[in-house]
Amino acid sequence: MSTDHLPLEPTAVAGEMHPSRWGDPARATALPEAARGLVEAVFGLDEQPAVADVVVPRSVLAPAHLDALRAAVGAEQVLVDDATRRLRTRGKSTPDLLRQRAGDLSDAPDAVVRPADHAQVAAVLAVAVEHRLAVVPFGGGTSVTGGLAARREGYAGLVSVDLVRMKRLLAVDHTSMTATLEPGLRGPEAEALLAAEGLVLGHYPQSFEHATIGGFAATRSSGQSSAGYGRFDALVVGLRVATPRGELRLGSAPASAAGPDLRQLLLGSEGAFGVITEVTVRVRRLPAEKVYEGWRWPSFTDGAAAMRTLAQAGLLPTVLRLSDEHETAINLARPDAIGADGGESGSASGCLMVVGHEGEPDLVAARRTAVASVLTGLGGTPLGEEPGRAWAHGRFDAPYLRDSMLDAGVLVETLETATFWSRVPTLYDAVRTALVDALGEPCLVLCHISHVYETGCSLYFTVAAAGGSRSLERWQVAKTAASDAITRTGATITHHHAVGTDHRPWLPTEVGELGVSVLRAVKADLDPTGILNPGVLVP
Amino acid sequence: MSTDHLPLEPTAVAGEMHPSRWGDPARATALPEAARGLVEAVFGLDEQPAVADVVVPRSVLAPAHLDALRAAVGAEQVLVDDATRRLRTRGKSTPDLLRQRAGDLSDAPDAVVRPADHAQVAAVLAVAVEHRLAVVPFGGGTSVTGGLAARREGYAGLVSVDLVRMKRLLAVDHTSMTATLEPGLRGPEAEALLAAEGLVLGHYPQSFEHATIGGFAATRSSGQSSAGYGRFDALVVGLRVATPRGELRLGSAPASAAGPDLRQLLLGSEGAFGVITEVTVRVRRLPAEKVYEGWRWPSFTDGAAAMRTLAQAGLLPTVLRLSDEHETAINLARPDAIGADGGESGSASGCLMVVGHEGEPDLVAARRTAVASVLTGLGGTPLGEEPGRAWAHGRFDAPYLRDSMLDAGVLVETLETATFWSRVPTLYDAVRTALVDALGEPCLVLCHISHVYETGCSLYFTVAAAGGSRSLERWQVAKTAASDAITRTGATITHHHAVGTDHRPWLPTEVGELGVSVLRAVKADLDPTGILNPGVLVP
Repeated sequence: MSTDHLPLEPTAVAGEMHPSRWGDPARATALPEAARGLVEAVFGLDEQPAVADVVVPRSVLAPAHLDALRAAVGAEQVLVDDATRRLRTRGKSTPDLLRQRAGDLSDAPDAVVRPADHAQVAAVLAVAVEHRLAVVPFGGGTSVTGGLAARREGYAGLVSVDLVRMKRLLAVDHTSMTATLEPGLRGPEAEALLAAEGLVLGHYPQSFEHATIGGFAATRSSGQSSAGYGRFDALVVGLRVATPRGELRLGSAPASAAGPDLRQLLLGSEGAFGVITEVTVRVRRLPAEKVYEGWRWPSFTDGAAAMRTLAQAGLLPTVLRLSDEHETAINLARPDAIGADGGESGSASGCLMVVGHEGEPDLVAARRTAVASVLTGLGGTPLGEEPGRAWAHGRFDAPYLRDSMLDAGVLVETLETATFWSRVPTLYDAVRTALVDALGEPCLVLCHISHVYETGCSLYFTVAAAGGSRSLERWQVAKTAASDAITRTGATITHHHAVGTDHRPWLPTEVGELGVSVLRAVKADLDPTGILNPGVLVP
Repeated sequence: MSTDHLPLEPTAVAGEMHPSRWGDPARATALPEAARGLVEAVFGLDEQPAVADVVVPRSVLAPAHLDALRAAVGAEQVLVDDATRRLRTRGKSTPDLLRQRAGDLSDAPDAVVRPADHAQVAAVLAVAVEHRLAVVPFGGGTSVTGGLAARREGYAGLVSVDLVRMKRLLAVDHTSMTATLEPGLRGPEAEALLAAEGLVLGHYPQSFEHATIGGFAATRSSGQSSAGYGRFDALVVGLRVATPRGELRLGSAPASAAGPDLRQLLLGSEGAFGVITEVTVRVRRLPAEKVYEGWRWPSFTDGAAAMRTLAQAGLLPTVLRLSDEHETAINLARPDAIGADGGESGSASGCLMVVGHEGEPDLVAARRTAVASVLTGLGGTPLGEEPGRAWAHGRFDAPYLRDSMLDAGVLVETLETATFWSRVPTLYDAVRTALVDALGEPCLVLCHISHVYETGCSLYFTVAAAGGSRSLERWQVAKTAASDAITRTGATITHHHAVGTDHRPWLPTEVGELGVSVLRAVKADLDPTGILNPGVLVP
């Protein structure tokens, strides 16, 4: 019954990503011939080869800047070569990739510096303050909201602070079940270090293979198993942060009434308040068993109601996802998405739910029985473990497919939001309608519920439409329409992708002008000269 | 099996508290004769009758101030009589009570104003800004950390903003399982309104009968059933706050990555950033069953290890408390604390644990069995429901006993903290030693673990020592020693009593000078003229 599909071994740690594609270049795939035919039939092929041999803009840093940075981190850790700077340009949103593909490297940093520890990060910030350099903290480079595209006007240069050398497991407390990690650890690296101690963090966003501990904290990340393990902000018990005004060390107890929870002010601060240099997280014992299974629902509404019942009964499994009718149909059409019983379920309509349980075998068994009893009672049909296995197998692969679609000239992107249960139908309809209206037919809008709470859930949309050379401008129109629809419905502009620069225009609607004023006040206090990720997060 | 001891009926809502005693005057009790003898034998009797007919300082408000306040809330809602102002003087810490008993009413507000809604609160703040009046938000008046003792120097007067008229249940969302409550609702009032909808909030601090929804939010309160229902900060999904710079409305989704969680910056803000005017909370269905039972452990260490096991296995009951050997002995010596099997357990040594389960009968039964299995396996002895019933019966009564002890001249006070599991023994010893050293023998220090998390727990200490006319100064010495011991150990200065003025000196140690600077920056932004609860929370 135990099925461990997670590529958690240290060997799974990926290297540098391609500057205009996702992930490990060795895992890039062309569209299968059948899919290519489908894409051509629906959208038309309008292949967009990336511009080759793009020149990276010249670094504007003066010798004095470089000398000061070298004094802070060591000469060999200040890199100004084109290849390194190209790889630290922007993140991995579709607009980011489209710009890189079109040869626009205007956001390339002037230098990449690689501090070894907290003290060196602090030294870099001091240099940046003195020389008025903009600083962009860089973890896995997987931002999909423009979080790495800082403003450079008004600065003497822009420096990417790459945390790639800060990869230590600093402390493990087996009694308190906490671990202190450095921010540069990628997901699989952190899990490998913890696994050697018999522990697991349990944080698996789609970017897991590349994203880092520091990035999870800075963006309030949520993972595919967060129903069971908790969102990253719930996993963090302590933070150490380097700021231009000194160090913050937060987290003296599991819970406290000693004023506002300042940890929750740094979580989600996206490099605009400081650079996170240590993260102390709650850990669990490595699960002895993992089982993922599929359930079929007559409709998205039925499946969502079942999720709500589980959450409000305190019966959440470790993984709980529900695809709408559109996403289910696409998923079932992919030959690798359904296993042995694919023929039967592939022909069925309705919606696919993935339910996963991780933990000790007896607890997994008990919970699985209890959850199955509720789901069966509410009209769900069990599909066995094959759909769960298929989901687990491909859980980190969607961004590779996006690259293939972009190659074919199809505009593909995702966006997500969250709301309270009573507003889910309104939000779902509003975002779908906004996207279809903005992009026109043919337009494919898929949705799944990716995270579930007692009081509500998140909706994760995938959009595909004809794009070709107009992809970037078409996406910007669609993104604006969807974001307007989200805020009009009273939902959050982002449940787990952060604000970056892309969501910044909608933040005042969400937290109010006064909320933005508070963020500005905090930033002004911690970063009085405004060197930290200028223009990111704070409008 | 079902045992509902909670006085949750609307009739349980208490009226005004006595200015220098806890709670409902009708429930005040003299020390039982046996206890009186014990107190005399241990500490000596040094009865301290309260000073009678204390004159309340004259209100310093000018007619123009009063007119402006009357324009904001209506003439009949601006009260300057002595009785009303006496009842809004300070909170209910032992130093607060000792000062009132000694006739010191120097902290009495100059006026008590009673706004009816958010708009009137905003209007009062505008008047306060214009006339430079200090504003103290007043809910249940149960602060035990000097949270109502604002600084008045530099202000034209001090106004208590009594939220007693803001007691509406504004909205219920049965689908999302949320409710929006006004801040002036006391615990039993809120539960009665929710019970009429079949819902429960489940927040039962010891101050439950008097404390208010706004106070729970402003102080990051934690309740006796928070293991099951969650701390108050975890129950809050939305807040509306009136500030001198306008309104904050926070909480667009169950969870969000749209920057830092500003809700968590207002929770615990203790009236220093704004006045909370609406609180949207997660609610649950009224539990059909409640059962509380006792368990005996050979030692505090054994019991604490069992709690840790339950928390880390994800098996927390609704209520989980463990008294140390000293508290257990005192508890068992009280004839009303043990029921039918009291003879047997009363003669036993060791430590008493209370385990409570609330919910649907089948879930209660399943969880009870699972918890009992773990506890038995770890060496716990079940004592049946009588000790649980006794605890539930007296769960809100300790402050009445304190009054009786203070009458007898015995210094009695409580303090609490929290830390990670691995530091619990060090913290426990450090605080005990600090208290005994500061107060000298005879000195009774009792402790229980009041709240449990995966990564740690809170320790709640009760201290009794000879005091008499020197009670106030002796307590200040002991409180300082205990607080120094707490921060030296790296624990939090308060797990659920807030900072107020009493814990303020230790806040910089806990969050750092830079953390304090951030709090100052937020306050300066929201309250630029500094009228809100001056001197509370922010050092």
